[in-house]
Formats: sequence, structure tokens, C-alpha cells
Amino acid sequence: MEVIAFERGTHTSYAACGLPYFLGGEVSDADALVVRSPDEHRRRGIDVRIHHEVELIDLEQRVVRVRDLDGNQTLREPFDQLVIATGAEPVRPKIPGIDATGVHVVKTLAGAIGLRRALETDPPRRAVIVGAGYIGIEVAEALLRRGIDVTMIDRAEQPMITLDAPSGALVADALRSRGVELVLNAEISGIIERSGAVSAVATAHSEYPADLAIIGLGVRPEVGLARAAGLRIGDAGAISVDDHMATSEEGVYAAGDCVEVFHRVSRRYTTIALGTHANKQGQVAGVNAAGGSGRFAGVIGSAITKFFETEIARTGLSRREAEALGVEYTSIRHVGSMSAGYMPNQQTTTVELVADANSQRLLGAQVVGGSGAGSAIKWLAAAVWNEMTLPDIVDLDLPYVPPLGPLWEPAQDAARRLNWS
Amino acid sequence: MEVIAFERGTHTSYAACGLPYFLGGEVSDADALVVRSPDEHRRRGIDVRIHHEVELIDLEQRVVRVRDLDGNQTLREPFDQLVIATGAEPVRPKIPGIDATGVHVVKTLAGAIGLRRALETDPPRRAVIVGAGYIGIEVAEALLRRGIDVTMIDRAEQPMITLDAPSGALVADALRSRGVELVLNAEISGIIERSGAVSAVATAHSEYPADLAIIGLGVRPEVGLARAAGLRIGDAGAISVDDHMATSEEGVYAAGDCVEVFHRVSRRYTTIALGTHANKQGQVAGVNAAGGSGRFAGVIGSAITKFFETEIARTGLSRREAEALGVEYTSIRHVGSMSAGYMPNQQTTTVELVADANSQRLLGAQVVGGSGAGSAIKWLAAAVWNEMTLPDIVDLDLPYVPPLGPLWEPAQDAARRLNWS
Repeated sequence: MEVIAFERGTHTSYAACGLPYFLGGEVSDADALVVRSPDEHRRRGIDVRIHHEVELIDLEQRVVRVRDLDGNQTLREPFDQLVIATGAEPVRPKIPGIDATGVHVVKTLAGAIGLRRALETDPPRRAVIVGAGYIGIEVAEALLRRGIDVTMIDRAEQPMITLDAPSGALVADALRSRGVELVLNAEISGIIERSGAVSAVATAHSEYPADLAIIGLGVRPEVGLARAAGLRIGDAGAISVDDHMATSEEGVYAAGDCVEVFHRVSRRYTTIALGTHANKQGQVAGVNAAGGSGRFAGVIGSAITKFFETEIARTGLSRREAEALGVEYTSIRHVGSMSAGYMPNQQTTTVELVADANSQRLLGAQVVGGSGAGSAIKWLAAAVWNEMTLPDIVDLDLPYVPPLGPLWEPAQDAARRLNWS
Repeated sequence: MEVIAFERGTHTSYAACGLPYFLGGEVSDADALVVRSPDEHRRRGIDVRIHHEVELIDLEQRVVRVRDLDGNQTLREPFDQLVIATGAEPVRPKIPGIDATGVHVVKTLAGAIGLRRALETDPPRRAVIVGAGYIGIEVAEALLRRGIDVTMIDRAEQPMITLDAPSGALVADALRSRGVELVLNAEISGIIERSGAVSAVATAHSEYPADLAIIGLGVRPEVGLARAAGLRIGDAGAISVDDHMATSEEGVYAAGDCVEVFHRVSRRYTTIALGTHANKQGQVAGVNAAGGSGRFAGVIGSAITKFFETEIARTGLSRREAEALGVEYTSIRHVGSMSAGYMPNQQTTTVELVADANSQRLLGAQVVGGSGAGSAIKWLAAAVWNEMTLPDIVDLDLPYVPPLGPLWEPAQDAARRLNWS
């Protein structure tokens, strides 16, 4: 099978999740983030063409129209099978000053290389991060590591809106304990410029001085090409695919941040821009486009991040999500220990469980705690995936040794309290 | 309900798993290991009688005959419901010198208090630990922390026989890297005494000088009372109970190390002396004895320990166990990273998966790795418990952030390699 891959940028197959650690300097070299360069792909028989932007997909003629950005010419490439992996674009609010120098999004490797150069050659003193989600928090750590003062602005009443309020409050505590000025319930209204560069970020009520502004408002599936080609776009605003990653058009597949995913707990289609899903989906789309048979099993909303020593993780549905779906749920918050109670250096982990009030099925879990706490979300994800109930969770044979946890794993302890209350 | 509890020793409800950390000094005070003292139980309405040894259970008359060890008199106590929680006794080989001063088992709090006093008042220089299982390894760390030279002798060709050979070899490496002299394929033949105290431990081929000998050869269910009473003892040598922890006699329950447990993967009854099971079983037995309805769901052989920074964990069946059961299995060993490949301070974790060759169901897993590695066994235990297949495991939505793991969780990576090989 002849495989041609068009990429409008310079880099292929890089670890976007690693960009905050490249910005912070823990990853010293941008090349380390590149899993496979264009040449490596070529050696494996993939005809990678960088600086080539696909402008149009013609499903009638089975061709794509491509602009060679270097040669500035247009070519047409026929296909039998097509895989669309256009990803997502960062949300950039249409506010005054958004294009000022010093206003960045963290999305592409090329962009991160530029931002890091700026951090190193002309170190900013004060940064405003707009959006206190995963990227915002990871970039905050990176900037703090460089000694930059950080203000975070979020429109919600808590950071990490994918967590429920109590977990969000723990994240807020962690951010503030490291000196972050956290501004909540605040929507940005503009970027204030001085000589074309950012000098402050404005909200309705205040101005926050900054010589660097990071926009971390999430991403939007990039579906322009797919929509123009007439492919079905789902209600969640991304390309609609089945579990074979097949779009509405025979022989056309899509994978990654540009597609809708089936959420196994909510039973709805949604968009979740994560490398774990994109990686699996790309494999499935490729296998199927090549005549094989692969299947993507869907998602349950698992995610994890850390802010210095605080680990933050979630899976399944939050209370907020359960409410929005009209699910009757019960929930419990439990503060557990990360070692047996008699061991030295006690650290706590806070677990929140959400369960169906009728079936007692575990719908979701959130964990915020010290080093190592986040890993509990993995078995909780397996529990949600397998539709375990609270009594099932209490029964589960999890191992124990005093330095690595209490006899009752905190989330099991939470389950038995919720179960018996 | 009137509840009377007889205990021949002094302590009740203490954390036996914490004894090695008390010996090492990380837990400074023995009282810290006591979850509930006799008085605390009494305040909750349980008539605890320490220094009372039950000598006979008379099922015909529904009475127990008890010796008051302090008053040295015998009393008879009638019962309507009986719970037997006699635990297990450490294996003490019948070899010359086994009763010499300086030969210890680590089983009871009272024994550990005596041993620690000896460690502190007359610190030994060289210790031989007989048996390189969980207790042996944890006690080795405790003694090394006190600056004592440690030799470990095990009859098997590897330490931790509950692991397969490659994982066992990693444990051997960890032991040796901390200076342990590890003597394998060696059976002890006697304790050599000088003036009534241990001076060496002898095998068929050699003698190992020691002023302290720890016997860590595991435990045997203590079923003497139950057997004499006519209760059914199972093939595994422990009290036979159903999933309500009910013995063969109406109104008589048993729980803890003295009972057989149902292994959900092997579908056989076995004995596994672990606090996690005992704790759950005790609760179930108590609930049922009190007229409620509780159920113990069985075990899957999950266990974890650590030796300094090395974490060692297992769940389900090892290859050795699968073989013994006549199960056709496939297995894969995979060395993974504990963070994304481009992050600094790379640490490895070695995963071994065992799967049914026909159904691809995950039968078991073993993990040996650096700090944090062991926690993966928890989601693998959930996978075994829920009878997930290798493809299911590859599908599982586990979260990812670069500092806390690679994009493909090592065991998922192993599963897809095994799955596609």
C-alpha cells in the first residue's frame, strides 16, 4: 500500500503532552519530543510531505487538493483510502490585543520552540495564564520553575472544571501554595498592549500586569476540511466516526482530536483531546484503512496531571456531569492516607467517588493528593470501565504493604462508607 | 448481642504487617501498631479477655473450654454463634538448635517487641534470614537499616517464589545491590550454638556465621481447635468455609489466616495469609454471626512488598501456577519506563503478563520496578478480577501525563505486544 502523509507544519509525530516540560526546561531539547521525524517515517515507507497543507477533500473525485507551502503551488493527489487527522486548534478568544507580541498558545512544537526562546532570551517577569485547566496548570509549573510570577485567570469558580468543587478547591490550594495568584469567576476582556507587546490582561473588573500571556482555553476540533467535504459532523462538533474510525463516507477514516468519541459511561458522543485516545484511534484507523479490522472501544474520561508534588486525576463522570445527564447519583469524599497510619511521613490523598444511586455502579472518581496519589485513578478507571458496583469495589483483592498504602485502599474505604451509609 | 473474645496473648487487633517497620525503627513505638487495644474493644462493648486460651470447642454442648493463663484455671463459656479466628503459626523447622537464643520468627507483636529490644540492647553484627519471601525481604531491609550484615538462605533457585524466575531475578539483584549475601538452592540443616546462643546457620554444604537468625518460612493455618472440634478442614489444610465464612457446622464461622479462600482465577481453594483478606473476612463472619448477610468474594493472589526503593508486586496466577494447573498460557515480559521517554531521571519497571492462550484472558501479572512501579498491580488486579482479555486491556482508558508515565502504560504496551505477536 502506498502511503502519503501531508503535514502543513515542519514536525511529525511529536509528543504534544511534553510541551510544558520543554517550556520548563526539564526536557532540554525539542528533538527529544519528536517520536518520529519525517525522515524516520520515510525510512518506514511513508511518503511524508511536510509544509504541505491540504486545502480540499474531493470525495466525488477521490482526490485531495494540496498546497505546497514552500513551492507555493497546488497539486492534486488521488486516494483510495483517506485518513483525516487534522487535530484541534486552540481556542483564541476574539478580544482586543489577542495578536500582540507575547501572547501565546501552547499547542504546536514550533510554537513552543518560539516561546521557549522568548523565555530564555528575554525572560518575562510576570505571566498571566488564561484558563486553569490541564495545560494552564502544567504551564504554570513550567513558568514558576523559571522564577516567573504567575497569575491564572479562569471564568469558573474553580480551577480544573472537569473536577467537582471539593477537588477543584484542593487544586486551588496547591496553586496558591506555590505563589500563583488565582483569579476565579473572571472573564478576560482584552489584552492591553504597549508598543505592540502585551503589558496587561484585562477582565471586566481589573487589569493584571503581564509581559507574557498564555491562552490555555482548550481546543476545538479542526473540522473545516471534513465539513467542506460533506462528511458528517456530530453534535459535539467533531467528525462523526463509528468504532472502526470510519466516517460517513466509505473508505474515509478519521482519528485524533478531530473526531467524536463514544463515552462509555454517559453513552453519549463527546470530544476529548488526549494523546492516549488519538494514539489508539490512529492505529485503528490505519489498520482498517489497510483492510484489516480494528476497533476503538470508546473512552471513560480518564485524565491525570500534576502540579509540582500534587497529583490530580479523574475518570468517568463527575457529579456535575452526572447531574447534567440527569443521572441519580450518590457521592462521597474521603480523605485517606498514602501509607499505613503508623508509618512516618504521613501524606493524604482525597478521593471522591460518584455512583449510580440505584445500581450502585461506580460512575466516576477523582483523586487529588501527594506524590503517588494519582496512580489510584488507574484501578478506578478499570473499575468504571468494567462497570463495577461499590460492593464489587469493596470486594476487590488489592494488595497492601504498610509503606505504600493503608490496609484499606482509600477509594475502597470510601466505597464501603458510601455503600453502608 | 453479647460478644466475648478470647485472646491467649496480650495484644488485640494489631497491624502484623507493620512488624518489619517496627523492627527497623521507622515505627518507633509498638503501641502505634495497635489498632484497638483490649480496653478500646471493651468500650465498644466487646468483652475481650486476654491471656485466655481456648483449649476446646464442644460443638455438641455449644461451649468453649478456656484456660485463664493468669489465674491458671479453666472455665466453660457457652455460645450461640462462634467465630474462629485462630490465625496461623509460623513454620519452625525441626532442626537442631532451633530453640537457641537469637533464633526468632516475626509473627506476633510481643515477639517483635522482644526482638527489637535485643536489636537495640545487644546489636547483632551478622544476621541470617532463612526464607526469602515477603517477611524475609522486609526484615532484611529492617536489619540493613540498622547496619547489620544480612545473609538470606532460601531453598528455591530464586527469592520470592510467588514470582516467576525473571521477576525473582530482579528481586535477587535488588537484594544483592544492598549487600545481602543471597544463598539460593540451599536448605538449612541446623542452628549452630555457642553457649546456648546461635553462632551460625548450617546448610548441607556450608555454615553462615550469625548472632541472629530469623526464620521466615511462612505460616501454617492454626486449625488444631477446629479439627479437634470436628469442623471440616479442606485439602489446603485450613478450615473449610463458604462465601459467608460459615464452617461445616451451623452457627460456627471462621475468618483470617486459619481458613481456606476461594481463588477466583484458579477456581481452587487455597491458603493466603494476608491482612487484607483477614480484615474483609472478619467483617463478613461478624455480620453473618450477628444475623446479617455478608459475603466474601474470594481472592486473586494480589500481593505487594518493597525492598528499599524496589517495589515488587503480583496478582493472579504466575506462569508456575498456571503450569501446575495445566492451563495453556502465553506470557510476555516487558521493560517499560516510569515516565515519558524524554523526561529526565528515567526509571524502569518490568512487567510480566500471563494470559490464557485460548481466550486471551489475563490470568496474572507481576511488576518489579522503582518507586511507584508497584501501584500498577492495582489496575492489573482489577483487570484480572474482571476477567479482562489482552485486547480489553489495550482498549482500557488509562490516563497519562509525561512525568508520571509513558503514553502507553507499560502493562498495556506488554498486552498489545503479546496480543499481536
